[in-house]
Amino acid sequence: MAQSTEHITSTANLHKEISHLRHELKTTAESHPASSERIRVGDYLLERLVQLGVTTLFGVPGDFNLGFLDLVEDHPKIHWAGNCNELNASYAADGFARVKEGSVGAVVTTFGVGELSAINGIAGSFSEHVPVVHIVGTPNTLQLKTKPMLHHTLGDGRFDAYQKAAEQFTISQAHLTRKENADVEIDRVLTDCIISGRPVYLTLPTDVAYERISAARLSTPLNKESPENDPDIEASVVESIYKLVKEADGDVAVLVDACAIRHRIKKELREFLDQSQFPVYAAPMGKTAIDEDHARYGGVYVGSISHPEILEKVEGAKFIISIGSMLSDFNTGNFTYHIPKGKTIELHSDHSRVLHALYPGIGFKKLLPNLTAKLAEFREVAQKTPVPSFTYAVPDEPNDIISQAYLWPRVGQFFKPKDVILAETGTSSFGIIDVPLPKEATLITQVLWGSIGYSVGATLGAACAARDLNLGRTILFVGDGSLQLTVQELSTMVTNKLTPIIFVLNNSGYTIERYIRGMHRQYNNVASWDYTQILKTFTGGNDVTVSYKVKTKAELNALLNDETFKKAEKMQLVEIIMPAEDAPASLSRQTELGGKTNHYGDPETV
Amino acid sequence: MAQSTEHITSTANLHKEISHLRHELKTTAESHPASSERIRVGDYLLERLVQLGVTTLFGVPGDFNLGFLDLVEDHPKIHWAGNCNELNASYAADGFARVKEGSVGAVVTTFGVGELSAINGIAGSFSEHVPVVHIVGTPNTLQLKTKPMLHHTLGDGRFDAYQKAAEQFTISQAHLTRKENADVEIDRVLTDCIISGRPVYLTLPTDVAYERISAARLSTPLNKESPENDPDIEASVVESIYKLVKEADGDVAVLVDACAIRHRIKKELREFLDQSQFPVYAAPMGKTAIDEDHARYGGVYVGSISHPEILEKVEGAKFIISIGSMLSDFNTGNFTYHIPKGKTIELHSDHSRVLHALYPGIGFKKLLPNLTAKLAEFREVAQKTPVPSFTYAVPDEPNDIISQAYLWPRVGQFFKPKDVILAETGTSSFGIIDVPLPKEATLITQVLWGSIGYSVGATLGAACAARDLNLGRTILFVGDGSLQLTVQELSTMVTNKLTPIIFVLNNSGYTIERYIRGMHRQYNNVASWDYTQILKTFTGGNDVTVSYKVKTKAELNALLNDETFKKAEKMQLVEIIMPAEDAPASLSRQTELGGKTNHYGDPETV
Repeated sequence: MAQSTEHITSTANLHKEISHLRHELKTTAESHPASSERIRVGDYLLERLVQLGVTTLFGVPGDFNLGFLDLVEDHPKIHWAGNCNELNASYAADGFARVKEGSVGAVVTTFGVGELSAINGIAGSFSEHVPVVHIVGTPNTLQLKTKPMLHHTLGDGRFDAYQKAAEQFTISQAHLTRKENADVEIDRVLTDCIISGRPVYLTLPTDVAYERISAARLSTPLNKESPENDPDIEASVVESIYKLVKEADGDVAVLVDACAIRHRIKKELREFLDQSQFPVYAAPMGKTAIDEDHARYGGVYVGSISHPEILEKVEGAKFIISIGSMLSDFNTGNFTYHIPKGKTIELHSDHSRVLHALYPGIGFKKLLPNLTAKLAEFREVAQKTPVPSFTYAVPDEPNDIISQAYLWPRVGQFFKPKDVILAETGTSSFGIIDVPLPKEATLITQVLWGSIGYSVGATLGAACAARDLNLGRTILFVGDGSLQLTVQELSTMVTNKLTPIIFVLNNSGYTIERYIRGMHRQYNNVASWDYTQILKTFTGGNDVTVSYKVKTKAELNALLNDETFKKAEKMQLVEIIMPAEDAPASLSRQTELGGKTNHYGDPETV
Repeated sequence: MAQSTEHITSTANLHKEISHLRHELKTTAESHPASSERIRVGDYLLERLVQLGVTTLFGVPGDFNLGFLDLVEDHPKIHWAGNCNELNASYAADGFARVKEGSVGAVVTTFGVGELSAINGIAGSFSEHVPVVHIVGTPNTLQLKTKPMLHHTLGDGRFDAYQKAAEQFTISQAHLTRKENADVEIDRVLTDCIISGRPVYLTLPTDVAYERISAARLSTPLNKESPENDPDIEASVVESIYKLVKEADGDVAVLVDACAIRHRIKKELREFLDQSQFPVYAAPMGKTAIDEDHARYGGVYVGSISHPEILEKVEGAKFIISIGSMLSDFNTGNFTYHIPKGKTIELHSDHSRVLHALYPGIGFKKLLPNLTAKLAEFREVAQKTPVPSFTYAVPDEPNDIISQAYLWPRVGQFFKPKDVILAETGTSSFGIIDVPLPKEATLITQVLWGSIGYSVGATLGAACAARDLNLGRTILFVGDGSLQLTVQELSTMVTNKLTPIIFVLNNSGYTIERYIRGMHRQYNNVASWDYTQILKTFTGGNDVTVSYKVKTKAELNALLNDETFKKAEKMQLVEIIMPAEDAPASLSRQTELGGKTNHYGDPETV
């Protein structure tokens, strides 16, 4: 897989380069040559971010970024979030970018200590295709040359160690060590960030941030367009797909996945499905790529651990049109797709594959509208294929316990259109799979990267973006174990006057790990915090938040039905007491399959 | 500097290699060839750590390390700390290693997400010469070969990206992908860790952790000895130094610094000073290398920002014998030493320099005893040089405010012999400089790396080590801004039944940053937490901790004089309300000097 990806990447790079050069030519031609407006490099960067829709910068001050932060604080259109730590800030930038489609997340850290603290978050954005700009304040250009033993250095003169690490986890890098090309370099990495949908790394020395350069380029917006497909090749792809669908008499199932969301083709996808009327299913990471109330939507396909009806429909179709797939273990029921390549049409952001034939450089953004036009003729025959009804009834359990089986369908009833929902890796990300989400809801999970604690930081960023876009409530589901990693960012939500609802699933530790191994091991326990006291502690007792604790189904229902609670006008935290050894069915099925391949060498000893 | 260091390193490596091969030969010869005892690779690693004095393992469970954690939990001599997050765990391992001299710190994380979260802590250990073993649980050996799209991967098949990042910040790495050489590889990196005093990186696949190998090598302890110096070269170094001291009529000042502590020569150093009676001063990072109640100890030298009397004594001596120096900005008053190379004798862990002559491979551990014997004859003449009395009187301030000028000498009176004291980067690390510390006290600061939040995690590890060694109380000074980065680790201190005293200097934000830039900027503010509620929140309200808040000198004094408080038998947190714009004199002098070289390009605008 790595090899073919490389090949595809190199071809795609050529297309990208052509697209870039064309745009560069346009920008240069349009820039008023005699423009006398001068702007600081730091301000140039901020203007570009504002043009991209960035309203909030995440990060932590450090002495190599303070000068730049003056510019941030003085900028009328940018708000400084002021995170508690850098990892959380990077998670927040990721959450922001996911909700504000077409924009990017941006995080500012300081040389060495700050940027390395953020690196796990940035790697997560890389893994999951999220466009985040990581801006690192560095020593000034003289110090970068003379390499004195400054604090925040390794003490051995290696000033390039951090950037070597960053190169592993970012798609593009720029080091703004000269004002002469600072504008071009900023534009280059920001364009890479948007087009690739992946993080970029930008170092900004203290002095260069204040150097003045021409503002001319700012009058030409950055290129946000995906590169054009080669029209002849694209036509051939459309024709091949058309023939296959025709041979199959329209018996096709569409499977949507993560990259359909990340590479911003929800509109094209919707049009494709409305016109073609093919049945459509989502992988866990593809949930909300198509509204889950869509008439042709049949629910979530996760390989062997899918509901039997969905499994039969998907695996029984003559051909699968897979759009934006990301075939990770947790996204595929531990690699249990029974869909051979010989019956799969794969559409990706930068290549396509029709059965065994690979088409590098043919991306779905430009392909889909043409495919829609061509396949619309199957509309009537496709409509005849029934799709399962995607519902999730609240079970009638004869006890008071808030079980996983009860919680998830119950909160499903609580959701409203346009809500932004985050589910932490673990019982939450598995529990949410089967919950039908309302129209225009956004779901954020980190199924591939799976860094516990991520969702707390991401909630901050998601809520900022939701505010920008006038979306609904921001609602987080996080286990007690995961919350403990990043808890302080709840404080930043308060200082930023956000009003998310935080559901803390208190099941006394890392339940997902218990299912993987060590059900009764001490190492899967976490400390028993008083979760209802956290917001009070972080606000100094001010009355700007409310916390609740629910132990029974009745208490949970009363709260979820409460009108004031539903409005979410204050920040609210709900501790839900749940059994330690209870997990959503999808999680227990997943870990059962995973256990078979884990090869610990010895049988489990507990 | 980078070049000469490289040169020295390569020569030192040859000596290290020789020493390693000799030891390897010995181990192989001694191992009983017919030994039939078999041991799991994971247990082999644990036995080696136990032999080195490791009693507590820090880290966070993740699905690629759970099998290994079973072995940890079942091991009778190892305790699992169960940290809240990986960065804090790496800080804790660093703190453990600093207090338990001759041992190492050890931290366990999981592939990708976990290890990257810890990388800033590991880089700090590298920068500050602290021996930490980073053990990363990885997918099994089959998966490492086939590279499926597992969770915690980058999704592009690059399974080596994390180790490439780790190579930047560790002195040695081993990937235990074969049981055949697992014992040799473990021994190799652990030896590198001890001898270099720097972090190492060890990946342990889930299956290899359970493979059984011979236990034979365990009967031979690891080599902890620094390599021998070449006797001819060493003799020549001793002779050169002797001549210089003789020419100077014994008018020599000794300056001790960080590496004297990190490379474990406190005993040799003490003997050298007792015998030679030279006056001795410490750099900030060298505090407690020699007990501060030593008769010949004159206080802290920090270049231009030193007390005038100390500055005169140090810079006025005919020669300086500098031992274990680490000449970073914050450790040298922003590079304002006025001690030319032409009057400096530098002794390091792996090389020496006598004025301009470099002696690669001549390390101080073996050199010092010989130097002591040779220079003892200057005892009487050296004794005649008076040293300043290192005291710090509590000022008589006509108000109730707890100022920085008042706090530091006052807490100086509170310290007892054998206390372990941690001061966070910022007002605390600068404030503690001038405080005379009692006999056998340990001081932990992170003056070079300077990652805010470090001290909280480090306190956990330091307290574990202090318990092992029956030292005194563990006492932390941390600002409110820094505490917010890593606050959750206070919880882990409670679950580990530790009883540190946590002084939270609440000065409404990042005061060190205010002094560097942005005195009145919003970005230097942090949220106002109710610090006295934190421990209560983290313990679920159980009565195992106490919190206090002091706003006046009188309240502070009452608490510091309270017998129960002094005993520190419960975990205690003290919030000290202090002015936002007040800083220790050493910090304001430092930032004044630093400001001149910061080159923001524009004048400060606030």
